[in-house]
Amino acid sequence: MKVGIIGAGQLGRMLALAGYRLGIQCVFLDPDARSSGGQVGRVIEGALDDLPLIRRLAQEVDVLTFDIENISADDLRDARTGIPVYPPPAALAVARDRLNEKLLFEEIGFPAADYVKVDSAADLDTVAARLDWPVVLKARHLGYDGRGQRVVHAAEDLERAWEGLGGAFAIAEAWVDFERELSLIGVRDRHGETAFYSLTENVHDDGILASSFAPFEDVALQADAERCMTAIMQRFDYCGVLTVEFFRTDQGLIANEIAPRVHNSGHWTIEGAETSQFENHLRAILGWPLGSTVPRGYAVMLNLLGRLPPKERLLAVPGVHFHDYGKTPRPRRKLGHCTLVDADKQRLMQRRRRLESVVAAP
Amino acid sequence: MKVGIIGAGQLGRMLALAGYRLGIQCVFLDPDARSSGGQVGRVIEGALDDLPLIRRLAQEVDVLTFDIENISADDLRDARTGIPVYPPPAALAVARDRLNEKLLFEEIGFPAADYVKVDSAADLDTVAARLDWPVVLKARHLGYDGRGQRVVHAAEDLERAWEGLGGAFAIAEAWVDFERELSLIGVRDRHGETAFYSLTENVHDDGILASSFAPFEDVALQADAERCMTAIMQRFDYCGVLTVEFFRTDQGLIANEIAPRVHNSGHWTIEGAETSQFENHLRAILGWPLGSTVPRGYAVMLNLLGRLPPKERLLAVPGVHFHDYGKTPRPRRKLGHCTLVDADKQRLMQRRRRLESVVAAP
Repeated sequence: MKVGIIGAGQLGRMLALAGYRLGIQCVFLDPDARSSGGQVGRVIEGALDDLPLIRRLAQEVDVLTFDIENISADDLRDARTGIPVYPPPAALAVARDRLNEKLLFEEIGFPAADYVKVDSAADLDTVAARLDWPVVLKARHLGYDGRGQRVVHAAEDLERAWEGLGGAFAIAEAWVDFERELSLIGVRDRHGETAFYSLTENVHDDGILASSFAPFEDVALQADAERCMTAIMQRFDYCGVLTVEFFRTDQGLIANEIAPRVHNSGHWTIEGAETSQFENHLRAILGWPLGSTVPRGYAVMLNLLGRLPPKERLLAVPGVHFHDYGKTPRPRRKLGHCTLVDADKQRLMQRRRRLESVVAAP
Repeated sequence: MKVGIIGAGQLGRMLALAGYRLGIQCVFLDPDARSSGGQVGRVIEGALDDLPLIRRLAQEVDVLTFDIENISADDLRDARTGIPVYPPPAALAVARDRLNEKLLFEEIGFPAADYVKVDSAADLDTVAARLDWPVVLKARHLGYDGRGQRVVHAAEDLERAWEGLGGAFAIAEAWVDFERELSLIGVRDRHGETAFYSLTENVHDDGILASSFAPFEDVALQADAERCMTAIMQRFDYCGVLTVEFFRTDQGLIANEIAPRVHNSGHWTIEGAETSQFENHLRAILGWPLGSTVPRGYAVMLNLLGRLPPKERLLAVPGVHFHDYGKTPRPRRKLGHCTLVDADKQRLMQRRRRLESVVAAP
């Protein structure tokens, strides 16, 4: 079987590596043949929105998927490639627009932060009138890893903050006083079968995921999160891996955003679950049975941002699972990650501290 | 870092896949660009003994290794490539010749089956005089997966059996009445540090590995096996993964043969140990710290020989880890393997039976 992947970042790379094990060949469409994914599989070089190239890719594979949200859902819907595109482009279209995400959460009846739509400067008065301070101004499109967001503490700062976002279509969101950030990763196959990983607890640093811990064990929250995801999956007749990010507050879970793809907060599943999110995504979109999502102990995942520690020091940490994405270092760029898995939670926390000291060392 | 691999079979494929995770690029030398390894990495097409091509490969990588024993150790010794070749070609030269293996076991003082060297038909009389029946006649070179071996039950059948082996240089070995077959996989780095996996119990079917189980828990046998391997490693100032196959008899362990490479009986380490044999081989030959060899529960590995079961059925087995080598089916050819891992030994055995029924189904 062959899978076409639009985008050849580290997510595509890890999909391709999971694919090889199953006898699947992945082919990428990406502007850069030396990209993270391009180092492990063949790349058709070109823009991600080059429709003739998307069609060419479709001609040589059995199914199309994507590893990035910053692409046009319409391209995929209209490509008329004759082959399936999973996850459904309609889900991608929603994930690409924070307003659509809000409407989705309303539609399925799951709590999300209050918000005001900001189409023009005039809407900023509504923000000041309707929301308490601080508010988070978020561009509707192209926001990820903390980009396209401003925290605003007073009415007089609103306009400048909005101009800082380029005066783009935006939403202003009520500040959520959260206790922790959680994400749920699940998968749905072509026949409607679903499987969910355990909730993952995530820590962000300036908008970028720094670390994940799983399983976050809370039966009631797990059920809530799965109820939210199930409704979203049904809404789109979803196929593939889906991620929903939540805030945990004293009123329970608040849905924050969705990602119609494998997700950084699911990297722990490579060693920490019976079947990784990457393998399950491929199984789902190829129509194969889903794999077990049972955890293999407790797992901690640390992102390696901006620079990689010397391999000699990193690999000397007992039991570390190191993943190098093959990317050129750049400040705060995701270059790799490390995972530790342990049957004992206390021992895992001790091992985590040792790993953190190696990762943080100059 | 770049690693050159002579031979692009499934062992090379799994080395390359382990390498990508660590940010290592592997390049193969192999006659077939569409070989199992060639599907996941670049291949320099040519014969495995093409010295100019070996040198060309050496020029673009940091270290050379091999995934097959059927190559000339002299090529590697004499290549004068200016880059290290691991494991040491001297160990390869011994592994390629059953007589040299016997001499090695004698040298390190580890028990092995009695044998008689057969250089000519005249030596067959010595066989009849010195060994009890049955004896196993084994060609000294190019024997693997049961090829190049004949079991002989009486003096009058010896000559025909030897002619059946092409009248090659051979040894005649006393039949070992073994209780089980075990293998030890270990690794030694450039600085002399070693790490050993737990003993693996193997079942062969007509000379080809059918299944492995690990850890085989026996403290005394583990110590014996490690003593044998340590002596061999020191003898060659070894670097990389080494495998020693043993018979367990009522007199203890009998060394059978060595393989200076990652080994089929170590495939369970991919999911069943903290660090796989493939990753540890790469760590060792690149001078990086060795990874933990601690098992992650009990593991069973089943080889998929001759044909692959339908993926839909195989992947429906809960928790199965399936590895497809991308090879064209041929009777008794190794096309892939499956691994199950479980913290509970009894439950693993139940799961194994289910997997076996799927693998065996027509």
